[in-house]
Amino acid sequence: MTANTHLLTEEALVDLRREFHEYPEPGWREFWTTVHIVEELERLGIDQIHVGGDALDPAERLGVPDQEELSEWYERAASRTDRTDVLERVAGGHTGVVAVVERGEGPTVGLRVDIDALPITESSSENHEPAAAGFRSENEGYMHACGHDSHITFGLGTLQTVIENDFSGTFKVFFQPSEELLGGGKPMATGPHIDDVDYLIGTHVGLDYPTGTVIAGLDEVLAFSRFDVTFTGESAHAGFAPNEGRNAVQALATATNDIFGIPRHRDGSTRVNVGELNSENAANVIADKATAKVEVRGESNELLEYMRESLHRRIDAAAEAHGCEAETELIGEGIREDSDEELVDLVAEIASGVDGVSPVHRRRSAGASEDVTYLMRAVKDNGGRATYVGIGSDSPSGHHTSTFDVDEDCLLIGVSVLSETVLDLLS
Amino acid sequence: MTANTHLLTEEALVDLRREFHEYPEPGWREFWTTVHIVEELERLGIDQIHVGGDALDPAERLGVPDQEELSEWYERAASRTDRTDVLERVAGGHTGVVAVVERGEGPTVGLRVDIDALPITESSSENHEPAAAGFRSENEGYMHACGHDSHITFGLGTLQTVIENDFSGTFKVFFQPSEELLGGGKPMATGPHIDDVDYLIGTHVGLDYPTGTVIAGLDEVLAFSRFDVTFTGESAHAGFAPNEGRNAVQALATATNDIFGIPRHRDGSTRVNVGELNSENAANVIADKATAKVEVRGESNELLEYMRESLHRRIDAAAEAHGCEAETELIGEGIREDSDEELVDLVAEIASGVDGVSPVHRRRSAGASEDVTYLMRAVKDNGGRATYVGIGSDSPSGHHTSTFDVDEDCLLIGVSVLSETVLDLLS
Amino acid sequence: MTANTHLLTEEALVDLRREFHEYPEPGWREFWTTVHIVEELERLGIDQIHVGGDALDPAERLGVPDQEELSEWYERAASRTDRTDVLERVAGGHTGVVAVVERGEGPTVGLRVDIDALPITESSSENHEPAAAGFRSENEGYMHACGHDSHITFGLGTLQTVIENDFSGTFKVFFQPSEELLGGGKPMATGPHIDDVDYLIGTHVGLDYPTGTVIAGLDEVLAFSRFDVTFTGESAHAGFAPNEGRNAVQALATATNDIFGIPRHRDGSTRVNVGELNSENAANVIADKATAKVEVRGESNELLEYMRESLHRRIDAAAEAHGCEAETELIGEGIREDSDEELVDLVAEIASGVDGVSPVHRRRSAGASEDVTYLMRAVKDNGGRATYVGIGSDSPSGHHTSTFDVDEDCLLIGVSVLSETVLDLLS
Amino acid sequence: MTANTHLLTEEALVDLRREFHEYPEPGWREFWTTVHIVEELERLGIDQIHVGGDALDPAERLGVPDQEELSEWYERAASRTDRTDVLERVAGGHTGVVAVVERGEGPTVGLRVDIDALPITESSSENHEPAAAGFRSENEGYMHACGHDSHITFGLGTLQTVIENDFSGTFKVFFQPSEELLGGGKPMATGPHIDDVDYLIGTHVGLDYPTGTVIAGLDEVLAFSRFDVTFTGESAHAGFAPNEGRNAVQALATATNDIFGIPRHRDGSTRVNVGELNSENAANVIADKATAKVEVRGESNELLEYMRESLHRRIDAAAEAHGCEAETELIGEGIREDSDEELVDLVAEIASGVDGVSPVHRRRSAGASEDVTYLMRAVKDNGGRATYVGIGSDSPSGHHTSTFDVDEDCLLIGVSVLSETVLDLLS
Repeated sequence: MTANTHLLTEEALVDLRREFHEYPEPGWREFWTTVHIVEELERLGIDQIHVGGDALDPAERLGVPDQEELSEWYERAASRTDRTDVLERVAGGHTGVVAVVERGEGPTVGLRVDIDALPITESSSENHEPAAAGFRSENEGYMHACGHDSHITFGLGTLQTVIENDFSGTFKVFFQPSEELLGGGKPMATGPHIDDVDYLIGTHVGLDYPTGTVIAGLDEVLAFSRFDVTFTGESAHAGFAPNEGRNAVQALATATNDIFGIPRHRDGSTRVNVGELNSENAANVIADKATAKVEVRGESNELLEYMRESLHRRIDAAAEAHGCEAETELIGEGIREDSDEELVDLVAEIASGVDGVSPVHRRRSAGASEDVTYLMRAVKDNGGRATYVGIGSDSPSGHHTSTFDVDEDCLLIGVSVLSETVLDLLS
Repeated sequence: MTANTHLLTEEALVDLRREFHEYPEPGWREFWTTVHIVEELERLGIDQIHVGGDALDPAERLGVPDQEELSEWYERAASRTDRTDVLERVAGGHTGVVAVVERGEGPTVGLRVDIDALPITESSSENHEPAAAGFRSENEGYMHACGHDSHITFGLGTLQTVIENDFSGTFKVFFQPSEELLGGGKPMATGPHIDDVDYLIGTHVGLDYPTGTVIAGLDEVLAFSRFDVTFTGESAHAGFAPNEGRNAVQALATATNDIFGIPRHRDGSTRVNVGELNSENAANVIADKATAKVEVRGESNELLEYMRESLHRRIDAAAEAHGCEAETELIGEGIREDSDEELVDLVAEIASGVDGVSPVHRRRSAGASEDVTYLMRAVKDNGGRATYVGIGSDSPSGHHTSTFDVDEDCLLIGVSVLSETVLDLLS
Repeated sequence: MTANTHLLTEEALVDLRREFHEYPEPGWREFWTTVHIVEELERLGIDQIHVGGDALDPAERLGVPDQEELSEWYERAASRTDRTDVLERVAGGHTGVVAVVERGEGPTVGLRVDIDALPITESSSENHEPAAAGFRSENEGYMHACGHDSHITFGLGTLQTVIENDFSGTFKVFFQPSEELLGGGKPMATGPHIDDVDYLIGTHVGLDYPTGTVIAGLDEVLAFSRFDVTFTGESAHAGFAPNEGRNAVQALATATNDIFGIPRHRDGSTRVNVGELNSENAANVIADKATAKVEVRGESNELLEYMRESLHRRIDAAAEAHGCEAETELIGEGIREDSDEELVDLVAEIASGVDGVSPVHRRRSAGASEDVTYLMRAVKDNGGRATYVGIGSDSPSGHHTSTFDVDEDCLLIGVSVLSETVLDLLS
Repeated sequence: MTANTHLLTEEALVDLRREFHEYPEPGWREFWTTVHIVEELERLGIDQIHVGGDALDPAERLGVPDQEELSEWYERAASRTDRTDVLERVAGGHTGVVAVVERGEGPTVGLRVDIDALPITESSSENHEPAAAGFRSENEGYMHACGHDSHITFGLGTLQTVIENDFSGTFKVFFQPSEELLGGGKPMATGPHIDDVDYLIGTHVGLDYPTGTVIAGLDEVLAFSRFDVTFTGESAHAGFAPNEGRNAVQALATATNDIFGIPRHRDGSTRVNVGELNSENAANVIADKATAKVEVRGESNELLEYMRESLHRRIDAAAEAHGCEAETELIGEGIREDSDEELVDLVAEIASGVDGVSPVHRRRSAGASEDVTYLMRAVKDNGGRATYVGIGSDSPSGHHTSTFDVDEDCLLIGVSVLSETVLDLLS
């Protein structure tokens, strides 16, 4: 059986992807993005459209920015759309959508795509296609540098294809916010739409696989914790009385060095990063405050625990060395959950028959972290099956870089693989 | 001879100081402050009021913020005053005023006061008088934490006292912007008003001397350089491919540790500080950019040179260690210049006769850096004399801290010492 | 077929292991150890006993200590034995033995065991069996903390068993010096005895597998480089003129921090260690010299190359930061070479039939580095086959710790597995 | 009055100095040095010669090396002299001599000179006079790099001159051991010979003043503490299980960086040094032990206290960061004590009349640390007077460097200034 995808032109997918690419919004701030997904869902005639607090469990959100930050993005989005009805529902960081289509008896299939962007300034080089073709980021300093614009397109394209075909059962698309902050997966997994899902498919574009490659089961997603760290000391005049300060900048520098030096572990891969530093101050003042965003990962929950303990010990000690106090706040987390054999088999089989697909890998390591694992675990805990599918795409440079781009040929491939899998499960 | 100061009430000085305290503005952004100084000068009937580009040499300004930053403070100031005539002249960071009063033949005496504030969040504790008495900073995150609000008051109060008395010659008050950035002294010293000055008096409040103490000659101002440092590397996904980054945060941490470890020097005092760090990024991205504000000081120009060389070597090496590039930009500088014996003698003698003054120190080390030294050197190069006078003030905590405050009793003392000295020189 | 091992009592193996345990000697200093192996070989009536320069290619030795260090160990060994004939041949760091037994036509089988000890002070706790039972290290500060005493025992026990049975072909045992320094494998692999070897078996005890476990093919030995690093600066009086020094200790501290912070690599496991520091100096002198022993490893040669480049960049930059010079000298290296399928199959099958063996793993990752890989590669380059066999042993603590010990039950198991494999290949 | 120094030839002083130069011994190991001083005192016919335990209070000795280290130096000294009678008394680190000459009524004058050498390898360059002229250090790795060979010569030369002249009272020369370790001053100050001293003169050669210069009062000796620091962690195999270690080398590197970064203090000069590092280990073992010799100084006791607190906080925190324990042991200490006005005046006056002396400075800062201050304080506490006299000497390089040397013309100058001062006090 092959899905009828003729109504969906490659051109339409490209347009869709570029619209979202042009207006990247970071986690919990996907205000316009949510509005525009809703508009597209309405265009497709989807009747159940759950937004924000109706799509996930707001109490479980991690890493929601402060009110000032939210307001700034909200205002920007508000000046770009007149859909105040949707805007009202997403205010306060209540982004994300779940679309549901019911067609009688049958299993429930879920597709999860993520929708947020990254705080990376997009390249303006003529060699960078989005710059050359005029759809470079309008939100200076932010960029869809991990392909979530393609993921939204996969979600909408698959939905359109599925509903244009016959099927029996229920199909849900989870447009998840805040994957980059690893803050949106858990609230969706504890939200109201996951419990009846029998089969869940997550998906990611690129990952350094060329266009045409499909990975039926991405595994070994790294378990993950992210922290806001704050060192508090005491300010003093750096020229007049340097000894009277308790230097938060020194504490942070010591901590950073020690954190990057956490030993590798015999049992498997670990990761560590101090990705953001800040101390607003003046050059002639001993800093009384310095903050950082830090994350650790591990191939297993045990490895993550090792990294977390090692991290906390170093942060506390660095503070103590310089007479400061340290506070750490968990702002994002992820777990490891691997793909199910049956779904891997099915996706591998279907992908092999899709035009333009080659090669198909059954399983590969995902390498990085993802919070789709929360949804996968929830489904599996309920007796269902889950897999996390990779859709290859050529790119001039790696994910999370300023010249990342997708080969738009991957869009139709992705939609085909995903929609045919969904339709197979619902046939 | 004693100056007639009866027209100047202590209450008026306190009101003036509190007005300026309530609206602190940092270097080159003293827009409202400049406007309000002009208004006060007009009230006193001063006829020569030179503002901004007429007060100093704009080409020599160091550390002027970018347009966005200037605009933000400009807009804020604009919403607080209707003196658009003055605002127009200060736009673009052209702050500062020189007031001139001529009364026939005689020498020219200059008084230099600085007017800028610091990026420190003022305490809101009830134990902090400005908070308790309702004149805490309106500009959240900024504060007159070094007493420049008192300095402005010294300038205006001295001017009023001087003109209410008889004198022969010329009196100039230099309301200098951007002392904290050490960016305003040099342009005032190369500006149009310094060349004919025969006697220059600089002044500073507090410096950990109690109310009543006067230091006739503050010396040993530390020579000083301030730099913006930028490390540029390459971003990468911290989970997926950490090895592909060139980590600007690691470079900055290594540099910070090495910089604070620059050896002390046998020949005298040195200072070093990394006062501000920044890397806007995400926790899961290897940072491709990290910046810092760094300063070094030395008791002599030779010591400063030693610190500068040591600093640059460490910055370059830290960049290299982590495969990054480093750029450093000089954004502020200061020199050492000591007080002249004759003026020290005069101030010491006059201060001894002022009510409430005790003890009088002839000379003390200033301890920190100051760019009044540029004006002192310019005057001395022209054959004139200069001194830098300290006016003691009790304070609950040190300069550049969030609970710094002056004992307002020092205001009248300062005005008395300064105006009587000026009048003596112009008698 | 089962080898006739009844002539070899477990007690004899235990005695043998304890003799070697009691007198640990580090790499290239295994003087008494070599002598005693020769004595045992003579006792067994082995006719071809190749010692030192006849056993390996002396020109390829890496990390040979200086003459003073060699002499000290040589004198100590000389006072423990009257075999001056053998001592003469090992003088100058020419340790190691190759034993050869020829029995007519047939293939050549090699067994490689390593013989050196570690600079670790052995526990003297009553809970530590060698201390309690009276065979704790006589060479204070040195210890067989990686089980090479058992390896020697495996080599001698297997040789005795093999020659007590019928076989056809040639059997060689390579008693390799200086494995811990990764300096002995390469010279044995380029020496005169490897070229005709058709099957090579390496072996290691313990590796955190309990007694009874056998791993037929230890793989993924990490590629490896070890360096001596020397920072040279300039001394100065730390109190009088600290600025006149160029501080080698600071350079080493910066380098150490940066080295431990080399980023993990997406492609697989890496390792890094600064294992030894030294700066002989006085507390009141700025150090003009500081040395370190540093090593890096990678799961592949490419990963090793990444680590080496990262290491050198950090060392050079740290020197530069503190005005010093850095020199690095390669003193040990290792490569990766995995086990051959046919031999893995054979060992797995034979081990399954040995008394006390369970479970048998076909392949496991070795985790650490080893220079048996040089011999494995040489054999494979000549068209032969090689495997590296793990013999489990309970131990109270990990390898390279002061309370490491083997469960002596593993000795007979090891000899059985190895001798039956050798006899099978030579049958 | 001028002392009769014609019996003392410059040549004799040069010979004496070179003898001691050739055989440098570090603190508490001045075995041959003590023997040879005794021999010289006997030659001069001094009747009271107090050695070792009779010269000072053994219980107050700080930083005495371990028995093995003492024995090594003792054996070396024993092979160079047949004075077993003296050797017996100095065994166990009981070095040092007090020589006493009594001539009837009158005050007691003390001269203190120090006798120990430094662990610095002396230059063997032909440009280095001791190498060129054949009296370079015989004790490789050790050197009289701070001029204590000249100090011994000052002591013996002054003693000879004084006894060749008439005087009335008592003259004592304190040949103090272990000044470089700051371990010998305190036990001499609490020993049996200080209590009746009315005038104490300490002396130092060089200090970057050219030959001919005399400083009548060296002041501002820095207060001082020296520590042995030991980090204890847990070893592990660096390749196999790096996470299982608790890395003492990382702790030491972090501590070193943090220690060098202790902020400068507003109140005056401070110093800090990590002068010696050690971790005997292997490159492939995570270090379980690392040691350092660390010292801090301050211009006042308060500044020293600040440095000590800052040091301990950083050491403890660095241990904690890496899961290690830290121990610190005080092994040397010094205090600040300035010179007395009357003695400064006297020395200045006398020096002005000595041939070859010019200029004479009344007071200068000593810059470094010294434990002569303990003797100075003891004398002053008893109502006496003390000064610390500098004797200039050209030198090709600074103190504590491998090419340090004195201009031997300074020897006669020193003896003249010191002996004439002593004779004046005893006239």
